[in-house]
Amino acid sequence: MTDHSLAFPSTLRALAFNCSLKAVGKPSSTGAMLRDVAAAFAAHGVETETVHAAAHNILPGTRSDEGPGDDWPALRAKVMAADIVVIGSPIWIGQPSSVAKRVLERMDAFIAETGKDRRMPSYGKVGAAAVVGNEDGAHHVGAEVYQALNDLGFSLAPNAMAYWVGEARGSGEYRDLHPVPSSTDDATRMMVRNAVHLAKLLRQAPYPPKP
Amino acid sequence: MTDHSLAFPSTLRALAFNCSLKAVGKPSSTGAMLRDVAAAFAAHGVETETVHAAAHNILPGTRSDEGPGDDWPALRAKVMAADIVVIGSPIWIGQPSSVAKRVLERMDAFIAETGKDRRMPSYGKVGAAAVVGNEDGAHHVGAEVYQALNDLGFSLAPNAMAYWVGEARGSGEYRDLHPVPSSTDDATRMMVRNAVHLAKLLRQAPYPPKP
Amino acid sequence: MTDHSLAFPSTLRALAFNCSLKAVGKPSSTGAMLRDVAAAFAAHGVETETVHAAAHNILPGTRSDEGPGDDWPALRAKVMAADIVVIGSPIWIGQPSSVAKRVLERMDAFIAETGKDRRMPSYGKVGAAAVVGNEDGAHHVGAEVYQALNDLGFSLAPNAMAYWVGEARGSGEYRDLHPVPSSTDDATRMMVRNAVHLAKLLRQAPYPPKP
Amino acid sequence: MTDHSLAFPSTLRALAFNCSLKAVGKPSSTGAMLRDVAAAFAAHGVETETVHAAAHNILPGTRSDEGPGDDWPALRAKVMAADIVVIGSPIWIGQPSSVAKRVLERMDAFIAETGKDRRMPSYGKVGAAAVVGNEDGAHHVGAEVYQALNDLGFSLAPNAMAYWVGEARGSGEYRDLHPVPSSTDDATRMMVRNAVHLAKLLRQAPYPPKP
Repeated sequence: MTDHSLAFPSTLRALAFNCSLKAVGKPSSTGAMLRDVAAAFAAHGVETETVHAAAHNILPGTRSDEGPGDDWPALRAKVMAADIVVIGSPIWIGQPSSVAKRVLERMDAFIAETGKDRRMPSYGKVGAAAVVGNEDGAHHVGAEVYQALNDLGFSLAPNAMAYWVGEARGSGEYRDLHPVPSSTDDATRMMVRNAVHLAKLLRQAPYPPKP
Repeated sequence: MTDHSLAFPSTLRALAFNCSLKAVGKPSSTGAMLRDVAAAFAAHGVETETVHAAAHNILPGTRSDEGPGDDWPALRAKVMAADIVVIGSPIWIGQPSSVAKRVLERMDAFIAETGKDRRMPSYGKVGAAAVVGNEDGAHHVGAEVYQALNDLGFSLAPNAMAYWVGEARGSGEYRDLHPVPSSTDDATRMMVRNAVHLAKLLRQAPYPPKP
Repeated sequence: MTDHSLAFPSTLRALAFNCSLKAVGKPSSTGAMLRDVAAAFAAHGVETETVHAAAHNILPGTRSDEGPGDDWPALRAKVMAADIVVIGSPIWIGQPSSVAKRVLERMDAFIAETGKDRRMPSYGKVGAAAVVGNEDGAHHVGAEVYQALNDLGFSLAPNAMAYWVGEARGSGEYRDLHPVPSSTDDATRMMVRNAVHLAKLLRQAPYPPKP
Repeated sequence: MTDHSLAFPSTLRALAFNCSLKAVGKPSSTGAMLRDVAAAFAAHGVETETVHAAAHNILPGTRSDEGPGDDWPALRAKVMAADIVVIGSPIWIGQPSSVAKRVLERMDAFIAETGKDRRMPSYGKVGAAAVVGNEDGAHHVGAEVYQALNDLGFSLAPNAMAYWVGEARGSGEYRDLHPVPSSTDDATRMMVRNAVHLAKLLRQAPYPPKP
């Protein structure tokens, strides 16, 4: 018999990076999407912390600490404490934002931090994407985020992206959708449901070390 | 205590698509890579069936059966019977082969085959990539394959790609590497180890249906 | 003084590949877009021939002639006779169609057909894309087509893509838009206007050979 | 008769962005590649200014001036004065650097700066890429840069990328290649030769305005 209701000693934690180009406090569609993602996680008892990446001084580089003034080490600690990491990115020119790229780049350090068993510190964590734009580009942002997260040790549950875009050359904003179309909302909940399931499984049974 | 040695009633099955542009029987680096992938699966007790996609008449389209002469329905049945599906693609112009694209396109039908519980027939299956080229392009082929497979319901374990490419503008072939560099070999084994672990977990505990 | 009205001894020719997955005669949004592209070319006195690629037996491979039954050599002759080549592709899973990939792959042979002066047979030709889908993916299809065409010797005028996609998870079709939104129509005309200008310049003044 | 030696009243100018993640003065393979690119431009009488982007405070955003402390307006003026713009990017996780993305994002403002004739301020300028990495990823970085530059109004001559990468999982550096392989060097010269030719043509005969 299949058991869908796995039990765990402690709750799961999600960390979401809002990789908007906008300053904190400005209306942000990426922020609106991440609020909906957090609400969907809450329905599973998963708490989400959202970090507005552009408000932090994440220095360019690919080491876990790039020295004085670097805010990444504190953010990296949040990644380490999370079971699920969501990259929330707006779409510009059909591509992920430079801020999303910066966050992913800083996790490149995981590749050299495997220890003897060849497992990156991210092994066992689940990755996901939340992508919004005026028009076109979500699937490709997903592709870039998936490949980066997968290279960096994260696992991906099916349909790992919550997204919305408008018609070609449109100027609509996710944050102005009242209500969000039900097909989009369904997909957000599905992304969350699958990510939570996978995160529980991996916490219970981590990937094996190199023999 | 963490249990890495999950027990299962039956063995896992892997299906690999060789998406080479070459005819069956011609020397194929994609074929050589997939033999190494199959050997790595065998070490875990997982049997791999490899399909030379270009030898089959996979009609253009996005339905599960495109009518008379279509070889896809029989291949689709193999996908359905597999726990792990590997897309093996050569790199041409830095991109996946047209044959790999055709195989992925035919699985687009899964999106409409969800039934009431909103789970595609691929849910619970694990995807992976095996990519070779003379030079450059593996990560991008990985990105395209990951995004397609993830959209189509597959889960991805960390480092889900076995790959090799030579130096820029080189003409080396994976099939001529004797031996394969140990870093490449290690990565192939890691891909397989992680995929097997995830496939076992998902067979034991499928993704939950839409509530 | 700038002269925008360059004179030429003969008219320019455009070749468009309809890379739909559908059979000839079926309603095709890619076909509808290419009719609008052809009309825009006609307004500049440029004749467009459109090839329904899936109706031809374009064998897998990367040589200019893959042997008996291969329809590519005849299509390649059309490419050689054209000044402007348009890749018309539908979007499936956010990516170019397998048929578009096949057409691009067959032009890979140009890389080895440079002769002593290092110019591919495509040098001097202008490339462009025409992309439609129910939702999302045009910019990425553009990226794949641009990079492939550029690697294969084509030049690209600004805004080299005519495209339309609907809202996320929509099911609208370009062929059902009556009328086409003016912003989309403007972009199609701009793509064509720029491509024609560049093709005239390059016919007049070819790229120099390797010294 | 074809005239390859077009005459111009003034010399052409190239602007190269070094989008390395490293601080100025650190050994940079992207910097080494851009020096070779500049030398190739010099052979055509084209002067190259290279900007180390990470040494400037390019604020996140998509407007031409993001306010106090923004270094972009001064860099934008350099773009405006250039005939050819080269995006020099290292490869991280198979993708363009966050710094390259930032530079491209800031040019997104061009889309709204067209004036009545619908030509962006970048129309007539030629774009190019210079990409280096330890291994794998150049073609995809090229695809992202090409699509962004093309959307933003730049033209692309054939083979618009100078690049080098090493074998899969290698750790070689372009800056340590003495000499650079002749095939790589040839490609750099070809990129430059074609870009210069196209820039000359477009200065002589700009793209026509919207009728």
